[in-house]
Amino acid sequence: MQHFKRKREETGKKMKEIASLIQYRPNVKVVDATLRDGGLVNDFYFTDEFVKALYLTNLRAGVDYMEFGYKASSEMFDADKFGKWKFSRDEDIRAIVGENATDLKIAVMADVGRCDYKTDIINRADSPIDLIRVATYLNTIPAAVEMIEDAAGKGYEVSCNIMAISNTQEGDLKVALDILGQTSVDVLYIVDSYGAIYPEQMARLADIYMNAAVKYGKKVGVHAHNNQQLAFANTIEAVGDGVDWLDATYASMGRGAGNCAMELLLGFLRNPKYNVYPAIQFVDSYMNKLKAEGVVWGYDLQYLMTGLLNQHPRTAIQFTKEKRNDYAEFYREVVAQD
Amino acid sequence: MQHFKRKREETGKKMKEIASLIQYRPNVKVVDATLRDGGLVNDFYFTDEFVKALYLTNLRAGVDYMEFGYKASSEMFDADKFGKWKFSRDEDIRAIVGENATDLKIAVMADVGRCDYKTDIINRADSPIDLIRVATYLNTIPAAVEMIEDAAGKGYEVSCNIMAISNTQEGDLKVALDILGQTSVDVLYIVDSYGAIYPEQMARLADIYMNAAVKYGKKVGVHAHNNQQLAFANTIEAVGDGVDWLDATYASMGRGAGNCAMELLLGFLRNPKYNVYPAIQFVDSYMNKLKAEGVVWGYDLQYLMTGLLNQHPRTAIQFTKEKRNDYAEFYREVVAQD
Repeated sequence: MQHFKRKREETGKKMKEIASLIQYRPNVKVVDATLRDGGLVNDFYFTDEFVKALYLTNLRAGVDYMEFGYKASSEMFDADKFGKWKFSRDEDIRAIVGENATDLKIAVMADVGRCDYKTDIINRADSPIDLIRVATYLNTIPAAVEMIEDAAGKGYEVSCNIMAISNTQEGDLKVALDILGQTSVDVLYIVDSYGAIYPEQMARLADIYMNAAVKYGKKVGVHAHNNQQLAFANTIEAVGDGVDWLDATYASMGRGAGNCAMELLLGFLRNPKYNVYPAIQFVDSYMNKLKAEGVVWGYDLQYLMTGLLNQHPRTAIQFTKEKRNDYAEFYREVVAQD
Repeated sequence: MQHFKRKREETGKKMKEIASLIQYRPNVKVVDATLRDGGLVNDFYFTDEFVKALYLTNLRAGVDYMEFGYKASSEMFDADKFGKWKFSRDEDIRAIVGENATDLKIAVMADVGRCDYKTDIINRADSPIDLIRVATYLNTIPAAVEMIEDAAGKGYEVSCNIMAISNTQEGDLKVALDILGQTSVDVLYIVDSYGAIYPEQMARLADIYMNAAVKYGKKVGVHAHNNQQLAFANTIEAVGDGVDWLDATYASMGRGAGNCAMELLLGFLRNPKYNVYPAIQFVDSYMNKLKAEGVVWGYDLQYLMTGLLNQHPRTAIQFTKEKRNDYAEFYREVVAQD
């Protein structure tokens, strides 16, 4: 950003190899997070027809993983107030995917402190689920480690999504990655919960994560938010920096400003296994319908502001829920927060 | 993009200096193109109140140049079919800005082949205009050179905007830059007319332009389109590569998918002369009203498709005008084009 001008030779800056604009890296994995992150804006009330169509779309589009939702504690959350993908029971997944004799793997998210993982996550051999995504903040890493080992012990692939890292100290992050590196986790995720990260900062974060990943034999993933219209840009910055696991959602559906759009990501990726056309069809037939029915998500000025200020989007989400449109007043409110 | 994974040390890739994330480059110039590029979606029918408020907003926001519109030939275009900013007569500008005794400079765009520049552009000493932006395709560079020298001879600052370079051969582009480098032009503009360029490609283009700029003592500018939600990302990529002149429009208003959003750009820039709050106020009070009144622009699936396919957006604009929403069918149509 805004570098003092100097010649490239002086800065030693080199561009990424041009071959990589044409060729592809076979290790890339695309993760569809539509039901899980999208569920945050409609309380997980997706029809079975929608979920089935999404599953078939992911198959046709060459998506590698489909995240069905959260494994939320039914002790903590009232099943009457949420659709079934808040809980993602194995039998509900099974009702959609059957034996899932496909290349598409099934994921769920397990939040630290909000998942009865010891009972609700059964052995992989008996479950349709392949990947457990453990979501944690930096201050709950030890609890995340327990969940990681539980899931790994039951035979699952495991990722760890460290949320809200845009206001994390680099030293703390490195300690966390060192701890996680020594666990059974397979993938370490960069999560820009606030949509506050610029591509240059993403490059630095990817570097920190990649160093840990190389040291401990892990993979790195990225989950971006679109507060500043950078979710796609940050995702392709990361993939250019060696990050393999890429989260996306159809039509960017997700909390607040939403995520990296699947239809942008699949258009970009060069591996011929990925197809953008099924994604366009699904957005056309299903996602635009959700929007027309009044489900609200996506880039808007209130999310720009919280992203810019590196704040949790909760105030912007509240602004949206209240159907406020006094954006300038909202800016004065959020600037006053510390 | 999708590099074969290797360690940073092996690729020699270096990141931009971290200091540049905090500090700023004083040479950066922000150009508000709202009336000109935005005028393409409402036939330049802006009220005087809107234009006056925009002018005052630019002053408060620290914007460096305000582009009022085109200097279109009144022989070629019917004044009854367009608002006044299609023609940007000096007296109309004067009615808004008076003597413009401010730091905000005034720009207009002059299209090769569509501007009676010899008569319609008078000496700068007698005009409120400071900067003539000559817009050309690669195949009309000699005509652009004549316009550049005419404007420079009349005392103006001059930029040359080479449009639609995403489907240009690199060798041709270099020849064009060599020709333009030897003219009186001040700024050479990278213009991603199709919204087809990814940030890594922007870095390469910036490198090509910067080499010419250093050789000939010129500045480089960037004008991005948002077909793939990359207008802002490409603009901040470019500024990180030494590009100084940055086009933006309020609420991204511009042809098709629109441009880099001013409110995103001002939030990003670190020079304390720039203020994002007036931009937020203006979007809140004026741009959202334009949208509510039915003026249509901005990112949508049809623009993603033409951007992805590196096509002129005219088919997508037509799709929008016809209020079509059969996106999947549109994709089949544009894929069939060569």
